[in-house]
Amino acid sequence: MRTGPSQDEIRRQNLGALLRYVHVHGATSRAELTTALGLNRSTIGALTADLAGAGLVSEGAPKETGRAGRPSLVVRPESERVFAYAFSVEVDRLRAARVGLGGELLDRRDVPRAHGSTAAEAAPLLTALVKEMEQGTSTGAVCVGAGVAVVGMVRRTDGLVRSSPTTGWVDEPLGELLRAGLGTGHPVAVGNVADLAMLAEHVRGVAVGCDNVIYLHGDAGVGAGIIAGGRRVTGHDGYGGEVGHMVVNPHGQPCGCGSRGCWETEIGGPALLRAAGRDGVEGQDAILSVVDPAARGDASAQAAVRQAGDWLGFGVANLVNILNPEMVVFGGTMRDLYLAAAAQVRSRLNSMALAACREQVRLRTPKLGDEAPLIGAAELAFERLLADPLDV
Amino acid sequence: MRTGPSQDEIRRQNLGALLRYVHVHGATSRAELTTALGLNRSTIGALTADLAGAGLVSEGAPKETGRAGRPSLVVRPESERVFAYAFSVEVDRLRAARVGLGGELLDRRDVPRAHGSTAAEAAPLLTALVKEMEQGTSTGAVCVGAGVAVVGMVRRTDGLVRSSPTTGWVDEPLGELLRAGLGTGHPVAVGNVADLAMLAEHVRGVAVGCDNVIYLHGDAGVGAGIIAGGRRVTGHDGYGGEVGHMVVNPHGQPCGCGSRGCWETEIGGPALLRAAGRDGVEGQDAILSVVDPAARGDASAQAAVRQAGDWLGFGVANLVNILNPEMVVFGGTMRDLYLAAAAQVRSRLNSMALAACREQVRLRTPKLGDEAPLIGAAELAFERLLADPLDV
Repeated sequence: MRTGPSQDEIRRQNLGALLRYVHVHGATSRAELTTALGLNRSTIGALTADLAGAGLVSEGAPKETGRAGRPSLVVRPESERVFAYAFSVEVDRLRAARVGLGGELLDRRDVPRAHGSTAAEAAPLLTALVKEMEQGTSTGAVCVGAGVAVVGMVRRTDGLVRSSPTTGWVDEPLGELLRAGLGTGHPVAVGNVADLAMLAEHVRGVAVGCDNVIYLHGDAGVGAGIIAGGRRVTGHDGYGGEVGHMVVNPHGQPCGCGSRGCWETEIGGPALLRAAGRDGVEGQDAILSVVDPAARGDASAQAAVRQAGDWLGFGVANLVNILNPEMVVFGGTMRDLYLAAAAQVRSRLNSMALAACREQVRLRTPKLGDEAPLIGAAELAFERLLADPLDV
Repeated sequence: MRTGPSQDEIRRQNLGALLRYVHVHGATSRAELTTALGLNRSTIGALTADLAGAGLVSEGAPKETGRAGRPSLVVRPESERVFAYAFSVEVDRLRAARVGLGGELLDRRDVPRAHGSTAAEAAPLLTALVKEMEQGTSTGAVCVGAGVAVVGMVRRTDGLVRSSPTTGWVDEPLGELLRAGLGTGHPVAVGNVADLAMLAEHVRGVAVGCDNVIYLHGDAGVGAGIIAGGRRVTGHDGYGGEVGHMVVNPHGQPCGCGSRGCWETEIGGPALLRAAGRDGVEGQDAILSVVDPAARGDASAQAAVRQAGDWLGFGVANLVNILNPEMVVFGGTMRDLYLAAAAQVRSRLNSMALAACREQVRLRTPKLGDEAPLIGAAELAFERLLADPLDV
């Protein structure tokens, strides 16, 4: 009985699996690939030959192991030759990077972003950064895709930036603008910054091997990337993870979204400034302008940090009850707040989350730092290649 | 190049896919199976013959179509011959059912559950119901598994009931107790009632075809079954969905979990009774003892329903922001509350949830009613058979 996937489909799946493996794990011996992918040696050899023929991997001798016997050849991703462009639109800057297959940051640039500037203004600035980077790109190198991380709600079907309070953007076709500007013909995948930072930390960072993770990202607002059962949770339309607008304090402050007492009104920069009796600072600087004095012993700053940390733990406890993650990662400004108020966060978690839901959870900060959105945008861009390596 | 899944694996996958299709969709013509499964006619014929040989499906002429030409044979699940036992442990009763392949409720029984009775006391009562049902089971019928829905937190790895405030159970090996009592040798799969009601509604009920759903289940407490990206979200240890312990009112009532102002303290029976100035009723009856007078015009009951409905919408809005579902289903006591206070729920959703997150969401009540936990427990029990039809 000959049924099921065709030979072509199986070959495509296996090529994708092998390429994804070396993309994620780096240089890997044929012997290890055989074990990891559950394929025999001759198949691994044939797949590697196909990928090498397409310029996606190279084979070579491993580093000296000191062990006797003929060493297994090592398969490496062609990081210098095969790359994606990754972009990040942030409150006060625009970033672009060239990321090699395997996740290597080959080059990166940034320019300031003017307050109030539009997507139509951002796109040419980003493509200008690409032109700069092209100078340093070796002949024969191939761009296989592009991705962009944006602070805002991104429609799953087409990457439209529906709403981004931070930049003021509404219904901006950012991916389309970038695609037109790049002129490479590749679609530009668009993702929310928290989703993409989560993706990066899941593939290459602190959450490797974790199937149930909540990644909190703070900037002007607070959002989350969620992984459940090993897969990204983006919701029906792509707008999932808006945890900053979970209402935690019904009698709290009005929120920019029109509601009141949203989580981000209690843990964001403005809340810290308000509690500490300061003002006039924005974004990441706002958090630091309170966290730093608190670390130096300023009593009013310390009280403000404790209060915001208490609310941070409050919301985390809610999310732990709802999603029973094995890890919560505090990224962006939430990293600074968490590090300054870990005791408050843990205390709230212990008092508010059910024991069964919280007992396995680890609280962590990101491993990839500021690069996470770019790495994540590149991961998104590599998806097409990894799904069908010889078709891109 | 011969790689990838073996012939045996492909055959097993295809047998499972065909059996799952008729299990979910009922009698299906060979022609439709060919299209739905993407396999050719001769393969469908061979797979059907294998499944029929194992007694899992039968083939026969379709009902008269009135159309000319030779009709395509119809493949039916052997619902009378192949069945699972499904159990439900509830606050005040124990239920058992015999559910045929295809989801047909062939038989069901229940007995009262004494307040404070243990899992060790429940298991023999449930197996006694099975003995009763065995009288009516035709010769040659085969039990392929068993599943049980329980109000409580169920550990994913082994089905241990970690904690169930409703029954007072702590660390009860309910599945093991039932397996020993049944003596069929099959493991007994254990699931949380909200998760299993969600599963039932997703496979056969109101949420068919929906990939992102929140199913709220109310009884003495409130829990949720969550489906994201088409898959059940159960969390790292199986304890996800404890939405009843999301704190919505920091200055609210103490909750049995040790926290304060949990969602279930505002939308559960006790909250309604308190708001309406009544007492002395428990469980589903508590909700109805306020909702019914409200429907008849009782002003204090109406005010209580409005207040609880407002809190119901409050929590739903939070969940919609976090998960961006396409449907929220109100089950158990939440069905009664929602039907009585749909205006409050919708109003809160509109004022508190972000437009992008809520604009596609449909609010619904279950289609399967009280049977959902039993149907869901049976679905859990059928999983093994559907994964490898000829091995069970």
